[in-house]
Amino acid sequence: MNYTFSNKIASLKPSAIREMFKSLTDPNIISFAAGNPAPESFPVDDLARLSADIFATSATSALQYSVTDGYAPLRQAVAKRLKQKFNIGKSAAEGDKYDDTTVIVSGGNQGIELACKVLCNEGDVVICENPTFIGGLNAFRSCGAKTVGVPLLDDGIDTDALEQTIKSTPNARMIYLIPTFQNPAGTSTSLEKRIKIYEIAKKYGILIFEDNPYGELRFAGEEIPTVKSLDTEGLVIYCSSFSKILSAGMRVGYVTAPDEIVQKMVVAKQSEDVHTNIFFQMLCHRFITECDLDAHIEKIRAIYRRKCSLMISTLEECMPKSFKFTRPEGGLFVWCTLPEGVDMNAFVKKALEKKVAVVPGTTFNCDPDAPSRSVRLNYSTPTDDQIVEGCRRLGETAREFNI
Amino acid sequence: MNYTFSNKIASLKPSAIREMFKSLTDPNIISFAAGNPAPESFPVDDLARLSADIFATSATSALQYSVTDGYAPLRQAVAKRLKQKFNIGKSAAEGDKYDDTTVIVSGGNQGIELACKVLCNEGDVVICENPTFIGGLNAFRSCGAKTVGVPLLDDGIDTDALEQTIKSTPNARMIYLIPTFQNPAGTSTSLEKRIKIYEIAKKYGILIFEDNPYGELRFAGEEIPTVKSLDTEGLVIYCSSFSKILSAGMRVGYVTAPDEIVQKMVVAKQSEDVHTNIFFQMLCHRFITECDLDAHIEKIRAIYRRKCSLMISTLEECMPKSFKFTRPEGGLFVWCTLPEGVDMNAFVKKALEKKVAVVPGTTFNCDPDAPSRSVRLNYSTPTDDQIVEGCRRLGETAREFNI
Repeated sequence: MNYTFSNKIASLKPSAIREMFKSLTDPNIISFAAGNPAPESFPVDDLARLSADIFATSATSALQYSVTDGYAPLRQAVAKRLKQKFNIGKSAAEGDKYDDTTVIVSGGNQGIELACKVLCNEGDVVICENPTFIGGLNAFRSCGAKTVGVPLLDDGIDTDALEQTIKSTPNARMIYLIPTFQNPAGTSTSLEKRIKIYEIAKKYGILIFEDNPYGELRFAGEEIPTVKSLDTEGLVIYCSSFSKILSAGMRVGYVTAPDEIVQKMVVAKQSEDVHTNIFFQMLCHRFITECDLDAHIEKIRAIYRRKCSLMISTLEECMPKSFKFTRPEGGLFVWCTLPEGVDMNAFVKKALEKKVAVVPGTTFNCDPDAPSRSVRLNYSTPTDDQIVEGCRRLGETAREFNI
Repeated sequence: MNYTFSNKIASLKPSAIREMFKSLTDPNIISFAAGNPAPESFPVDDLARLSADIFATSATSALQYSVTDGYAPLRQAVAKRLKQKFNIGKSAAEGDKYDDTTVIVSGGNQGIELACKVLCNEGDVVICENPTFIGGLNAFRSCGAKTVGVPLLDDGIDTDALEQTIKSTPNARMIYLIPTFQNPAGTSTSLEKRIKIYEIAKKYGILIFEDNPYGELRFAGEEIPTVKSLDTEGLVIYCSSFSKILSAGMRVGYVTAPDEIVQKMVVAKQSEDVHTNIFFQMLCHRFITECDLDAHIEKIRAIYRRKCSLMISTLEECMPKSFKFTRPEGGLFVWCTLPEGVDMNAFVKKALEKKVAVVPGTTFNCDPDAPSRSVRLNYSTPTDDQIVEGCRRLGETAREFNI
């Protein structure tokens, strides 16, 4: 039997990163290729205790079918937190121009995919920072949308190029941004640029998808207001999750967006998974309302502050000066740019021979054939010893290129 | 701001059933409208014990990101069970013509949606039994596919009409079937017809999606081989879940299909939710391998045997003879067909006034504007007392129509 697949899926490749995981069976390989939270960041004891209590007191509702938009007490707790911490969430009743609604999704990636599904017809365009999150790119492609990249600078997307791209792309439907601790670049968009981007979106009537999985993971520098907090017109779909602060494996995230958009996303979600695992929605709610989430997040920040600082200082020590890297103030990644003349793919291959895995920058390009001189390094998953030894091996690799 | 939505989503309505749930806040209403498993069918004590043990022994891997195709030990346990109990799963290594692969999905509905997403371009057709599962219909619509209904008879789909429809629909890509304890009709496709349907699919090179959520819930009559067990050519995508035998709220299902199709579904799944909640995948695996799943299923069958029999005997007692209903041998539903001349929607409305909720048959039609003279009654969710009282109220309702 010869199978024929839909156009949108036929050309879709599995994420290079997830494929790389499969080849990382050699226990001697140090992986800087993942994006996993540090295992020590999971509040295991609290989750175990609360789980036991859910089984004891609410087993039937925790195991039964539930509503698609999410467990109401969790939605309320999330909305309250977003309002208090990030000034997110409008209510026409309070004199705002429109209503925002918060719903639960099965991880942030589902939020991205649902937004594209409800907004884009086949061939419509999502404008992305270039480079950007591969999971976002693949979600857009899997919906039949096209992606167009706009260069990401140190302080955020190139806003002149963004405006030009919108002008020349009449079927652009959404701007996909990770303004805070961007994946893969590790940089954050300045407040000035956030305002500028929002003004452009407003001028051209185009929606913004603000993906903020790392927003709570700041360990240096000053907080920058979210783009969503600037949203007076109902242009921003905000998405985040509990993956980086409670558990990635449970797949619980949330979307806050204008009610009309959210209702369409809920209808689309109903056809995907009916609802998100209700037991873990209840568990998240219990954790938020009964434990000290802020104190827990402070612990995670301390872990990443230490790991990031260790990676940066070891890289400074081991790598030739011609190799540039970002100094992140939060998130999970360092973005390393190779000197001109070094073949990035050859570098990645040589590093793997020395048993250290990094992700080639081309993975994150909207145009998969476009070149890249960068690689992504993750510091949240490896141990401290692995960070030091892996950076040493990267230094060795770099010196073999004689730069 | 005026939002514009994609064509495939703009016209999609929330499931009438799920919407009806929202209006069922009146505690005096007896609902025969749900499709929820009986709460007493959840093995709460075993799940609580195994959960505690997962937290104690494997918390880190149960809370961390995992692979998209599912927890390998669970995939193996499911594949083994499917082979032993249903003769499902081919292996070229064992002399079969092709390889089947089993992967985990976030409930059966995701399996349906992913299959359509990878096979259908916008406007392609999925041929369905008419009436059929509303969640399937909406999944196809949400992918931009069209649905074409073929009448469902007492012993399965009308195979002559099926062949005619395939001939006249060059862009038909898949036949969607619920051969065992069909939702909503409660009937099963005879073996003879399963063979005939498979032969037609083979003749025209069209794939079959066999949705089998209720397959384990037989409480009377003889087992009928699955369509997938007849699959010599790699034409059948088989999907089922743990929703009706362990927990619906955890959203864990599985797909067994030719490897090439499954790999595409996995790539598409990666863009939806990355992977299914890994804690509950591990929990399912522990239950299957450490508890007696077959004995547990026998208990569930006994519950539904009793509840179904109670509903049927009460209906026989209370309803005018002109109202016909199916006598299911398993599953969750009785399909009641009203005498000619009774307006089905008026009947549903009148029943709701008497505080008993049933689902109008039109909900399950491929063409939402086509008429229906039937309603769906569920016996798994209500208590025994509610079944008796609800059927009594339905009888009262029927008599008011003077038939």
